[in-house]
Amino acid sequence: VIARWFEKDRPIDSLPVDDRGLQYGDGLFETIAIRNGRLRLWPLHAERLRIGCERLDLEIPPDSTLRNYLEKAIGSVGGVSTGIIKLMVTRGSGPRGYRFAVGSPTRILLGLFEPTVYPEKYWIQGVRVRICAVRVAAQTALAGVKSLNRLEQVLARNEWRDDTCAEGLMLDADDNVTCGTMSNVFFVADSGLVTPPITTAGVCGVMRRHILAVLEQSDISASVEPVPIDIVQNFSEMFLCNSQIGLWPVRHCGTASLVAPGPVTRRVMEYLRESGIEECKS
Amino acid sequence: VIARWFEKDRPIDSLPVDDRGLQYGDGLFETIAIRNGRLRLWPLHAERLRIGCERLDLEIPPDSTLRNYLEKAIGSVGGVSTGIIKLMVTRGSGPRGYRFAVGSPTRILLGLFEPTVYPEKYWIQGVRVRICAVRVAAQTALAGVKSLNRLEQVLARNEWRDDTCAEGLMLDADDNVTCGTMSNVFFVADSGLVTPPITTAGVCGVMRRHILAVLEQSDISASVEPVPIDIVQNFSEMFLCNSQIGLWPVRHCGTASLVAPGPVTRRVMEYLRESGIEECKS
Repeated sequence: VIARWFEKDRPIDSLPVDDRGLQYGDGLFETIAIRNGRLRLWPLHAERLRIGCERLDLEIPPDSTLRNYLEKAIGSVGGVSTGIIKLMVTRGSGPRGYRFAVGSPTRILLGLFEPTVYPEKYWIQGVRVRICAVRVAAQTALAGVKSLNRLEQVLARNEWRDDTCAEGLMLDADDNVTCGTMSNVFFVADSGLVTPPITTAGVCGVMRRHILAVLEQSDISASVEPVPIDIVQNFSEMFLCNSQIGLWPVRHCGTASLVAPGPVTRRVMEYLRESGIEECKS
Repeated sequence: VIARWFEKDRPIDSLPVDDRGLQYGDGLFETIAIRNGRLRLWPLHAERLRIGCERLDLEIPPDSTLRNYLEKAIGSVGGVSTGIIKLMVTRGSGPRGYRFAVGSPTRILLGLFEPTVYPEKYWIQGVRVRICAVRVAAQTALAGVKSLNRLEQVLARNEWRDDTCAEGLMLDADDNVTCGTMSNVFFVADSGLVTPPITTAGVCGVMRRHILAVLEQSDISASVEPVPIDIVQNFSEMFLCNSQIGLWPVRHCGTASLVAPGPVTRRVMEYLRESGIEECKS
């Protein structure tokens, strides 16, 4: 897999070692799907990025400038039909120490990647999910933000090495399901869909938001509610989502078995496909 | 302030942009004081680094090799009498995604810095400390480790901009004092010294460990116990410590006033000075 990197619109291989993104994880990122040569769900990515930058006190150029950098990067390799572009914003180079200069120039990095290839059965038959031992920590100052502090996810994702599990669920300290290591999660209850809140931990996923927006225009209701792990066995269906995969039905979650894809999940997949999330062919 | 960087023993200015230290904060570091041309408290730094690398599944060379890199870096600039050397270990370059290859080669970075200059009165008259709004999150998987995920500290340290406060105290979600943004903390109770545990959050500071070891050989007792913020006003003395400053007495903590340096703190400073922590002249 060949990756190409850019700082703004300039190709790079390296960055200054005093970048605060490296030194302290002082920054954040977006992982945007390129489909049919276009940035998928860009407005949602741009919005999350802007909210995250406000919370971390990072200055960024207007969305149109960022979009221009992204499109120049894609164009510089002769265009990309299907791929991934990672947009990183760091607090740039700075002196040693946690304190930063107000308004210090941020660094904007872009990485262009081949799409990750997953087995087609992940969408058609559903996936197996395990419960990670590493918990997500409650931190309201960072909850929702896709920051560069991702060690929890790194540790959780490396709890298993075989490919029988596609993803791991992360719980909070109170045994509530929060998210997957790289995804958000939805459950199907009698009353409709349920997804855990992202107010104390977890990343506020773009595909989660897209699904909630799509469902608002549909006959399927969805609510944001805490989901204790011990009630997961009561749900009939479950699925994961992120910006790259769209939606994966879940067939096995820990020791629980679910219908995958179940009737509600099938309908969500159909709505998503209609909204342009082309992976969702059930 | 001129910083010089090295990868192992090779001078560098930059590093590959795909380094996982940047991408995910996937790594850790030590900040070692150089005093009289020597690495101060190296055995404690080496021990913490090794424990951290085991917990993060990072492979590192033997301590003697690391020490050799550090001494070569110091020697390459004609020697350093007083300064700071930062030793970083990242999981090196890797593909996109949280998963890493087992045994993937780590990257060893060294940064050589001028010492940070603080007012002499910080040691002689004590400092003012504020209570930060940002809390430390409870995360047993990372507690104690000086990882590259330092956004909590960055946000906490930037809650204030004036120099009247030298440091900010960070509480956990249960209102217990955990640490400063860049220091550990001790209190003087009738029964002896008390310092908060580092089992759910915080960095297990090298100077904290050194102080605990020095006191074990002394007539001053010390214990590791939770310290709820609302009992801080009951303590007669308080001090901060880290590898660079040694020890700072605290004169004001939030709205509480303390004797600084009080009689017990004076004795601790004397023991520390005798143990080679030269900043501790009261």
